[in-house]
Amino acid sequence: MNAEILCVGTELLLGDTVNTNAAFLAKELAVLGIGCYYQTVVGDNPGRLKSCIELAFSRADIVITTGGLGPTYDDLTKETVAEHFGLPMELNEESLVKIQNFFCRIGREMTHNNEKQALMPRGAVVFENGCGTAPGLAVEENGKTAILLPGPPREMRLMFETGVRPYLLKKSDRILKSRAIHLFGIGEAKMEDMLHDKIKDMQNPTVAPYAKEGEAMLRVTASAKNEEEADKLITPVVDELCGILSEYVYGIDVESLQNALVLALLEKNMTVATAESCTGGILSARITDIPGASKVFGYGCCVYANDAKVKLLGVAPDTLKAYGAVSKETALEMARGARHLSGADIGISTTGVAGPDGGTKEKPVGLVWVGISCEKGDAAYELRLSRGYSGDRGIIRNIAASNALCYAIKTLKTL
Amino acid sequence: MNAEILCVGTELLLGDTVNTNAAFLAKELAVLGIGCYYQTVVGDNPGRLKSCIELAFSRADIVITTGGLGPTYDDLTKETVAEHFGLPMELNEESLVKIQNFFCRIGREMTHNNEKQALMPRGAVVFENGCGTAPGLAVEENGKTAILLPGPPREMRLMFETGVRPYLLKKSDRILKSRAIHLFGIGEAKMEDMLHDKIKDMQNPTVAPYAKEGEAMLRVTASAKNEEEADKLITPVVDELCGILSEYVYGIDVESLQNALVLALLEKNMTVATAESCTGGILSARITDIPGASKVFGYGCCVYANDAKVKLLGVAPDTLKAYGAVSKETALEMARGARHLSGADIGISTTGVAGPDGGTKEKPVGLVWVGISCEKGDAAYELRLSRGYSGDRGIIRNIAASNALCYAIKTLKTL
Repeated sequence: MNAEILCVGTELLLGDTVNTNAAFLAKELAVLGIGCYYQTVVGDNPGRLKSCIELAFSRADIVITTGGLGPTYDDLTKETVAEHFGLPMELNEESLVKIQNFFCRIGREMTHNNEKQALMPRGAVVFENGCGTAPGLAVEENGKTAILLPGPPREMRLMFETGVRPYLLKKSDRILKSRAIHLFGIGEAKMEDMLHDKIKDMQNPTVAPYAKEGEAMLRVTASAKNEEEADKLITPVVDELCGILSEYVYGIDVESLQNALVLALLEKNMTVATAESCTGGILSARITDIPGASKVFGYGCCVYANDAKVKLLGVAPDTLKAYGAVSKETALEMARGARHLSGADIGISTTGVAGPDGGTKEKPVGLVWVGISCEKGDAAYELRLSRGYSGDRGIIRNIAASNALCYAIKTLKTL
Repeated sequence: MNAEILCVGTELLLGDTVNTNAAFLAKELAVLGIGCYYQTVVGDNPGRLKSCIELAFSRADIVITTGGLGPTYDDLTKETVAEHFGLPMELNEESLVKIQNFFCRIGREMTHNNEKQALMPRGAVVFENGCGTAPGLAVEENGKTAILLPGPPREMRLMFETGVRPYLLKKSDRILKSRAIHLFGIGEAKMEDMLHDKIKDMQNPTVAPYAKEGEAMLRVTASAKNEEEADKLITPVVDELCGILSEYVYGIDVESLQNALVLALLEKNMTVATAESCTGGILSARITDIPGASKVFGYGCCVYANDAKVKLLGVAPDTLKAYGAVSKETALEMARGARHLSGADIGISTTGVAGPDGGTKEKPVGLVWVGISCEKGDAAYELRLSRGYSGDRGIIRNIAASNALCYAIKTLKTL
């Protein structure tokens, strides 16, 4: 059983709206074990919409559309699908009453064209709209199923969860389960080079590599009758991959470096404090992005100026004079300072040249020092993120923060 | 001349990545006056990719692809397009050297499969990749043009701006010029409502509204023979729109709130310091994202814990006890504390309930106080960010930071 996603709307074609609906539906279909090989976007144009619907049904058993269910003359999805299936449109009394009630609740007048939203192809299963006017629907004919959902993401998602998912689950007898191996410090090409022969012919589970800004992820996905059987397929593969890539793996199903750090701190009942120069707050912003971070994080110092490093963290003016702000010595004193100021178990610091200006021959753009301080001792790590990312300030800062998070996770494992 | 967008990538089909590339390209094509009636997403599958390329060229003069230019065996876009046009693949020496230099700079080993990225269909125009390894390219055959871009959005966008836009503009004898009006505090629907009758029928210049997370932007674009003529078309429209929306406009061609703040501070030769609770460093990270921010910013305190507010900023324990951390009084003391600690001209603070937990009836998720302190006096502003953003922690934090930046800009204008 495979499906196809067809998103209808001129706002998508003009780029005024990012197509989050397609990503949401794609993910949901993958979880349900329903293959999906194409997504299409088309505008509110009858001829082009018709040809897209025909093409989609020539390739897929199920076509899920979003958009074009509204009350206006250019909302045509329902009518076009009904025509494709040769079904007449009929007034659905129940839907009409619900639409009338909706307008009553929000205290707005219902216009005549809203009645159009209660017209349905004969035999349609209607999905209630929990937060808008346009109901969704499913129709089946000759083994083909059309599922029509509204365009506004909030309405579409709620309808999928309450109506469409249960409807689709009834059609399948298998489940899909995934695990994600998170890696740092390895590029996509190198990862692929190390794994190519192993993963290229795998069918169940499948292994898919992903990469973004210095991070990498391997998703291992199995299709099975139930969760237990899926686990049996997934676990040995995850173990083997983790063995091969052990020096790069920072967690399994942990979502992100910051989440992995917060989880590790919670587990050890420890706390962390940050002292940031070149990352300017990215480190603390990423840590506090995790709900509940306040249990493990209380203090962050963004010490962009040298006198801030001295005043807030107690970095010695002599250290700054002798070695400069971007140095191993300053990074160590910053990390120590953050730990002592806050009373946290671990202090993390960053100091570097983010560019585009300010680089010298000895200290080029991309040179960053990360400091880690804990009771067992302090350490500093040199990063050369130089022109590799074409001196992109944003990337250098973000990858510096990622490295700092990764070193903190590694340090925690030794405590 | 019309175009079609074809995005290649299994991560898009699985919903792991939201297709921001399609929206970006769609918008750019619209600005260039190139019609676009379809967007398609397909996975890294040779047969399906081939059929999509054939279908796209049957409907459009230009097909722009993203993705599938990487070094791995399943990156096939280039080869498939070359085959479609009947062109042989040849090694592009210049691209190979650039890829080798890239690996040299980032200090990573270049694996054999990276060489694949330097293979090009014969006669291709190569677009340099400013921040990654995969070069892009354009090939023309029999009046049809294929433009192949990498999948990572950052690489794709930079390449579009530096290589593809000039390439497409050369196909026409006119130039395009745009000005961007940046607005904060107005929703897209309201902006559209205020401007609809004025802008809907405009042809030259065109006015396109953009919106993201609380910010809005109007791009006014003219097509003309030269820059001078374009300015004559644009200026009166920009002036009129700024008049209508004056209470929301924070700058013209200023890129972002943080850039507008740094520019305004530089102009007045003033400095700013931050004290962040709920935004956790987002404010300082956004300010320091601007090159040269060190001239106007030296100190940021991420005071996530109450004792950090007391210790670093001198917030009175009695204030915290009487009014709570999320209160007007605490916001004011934080802003004042940041200003005094740093000696900056302006202190900005944020304190609020970012959620998903921690909300109460009196202080629900989304309640944020922004404090601004300067020599002329202090002020605090209450934000209610829960409604409409459905309580999303990330969005609440980011919009709180945006509001803080906006209030700082407004305060600066009075100094």
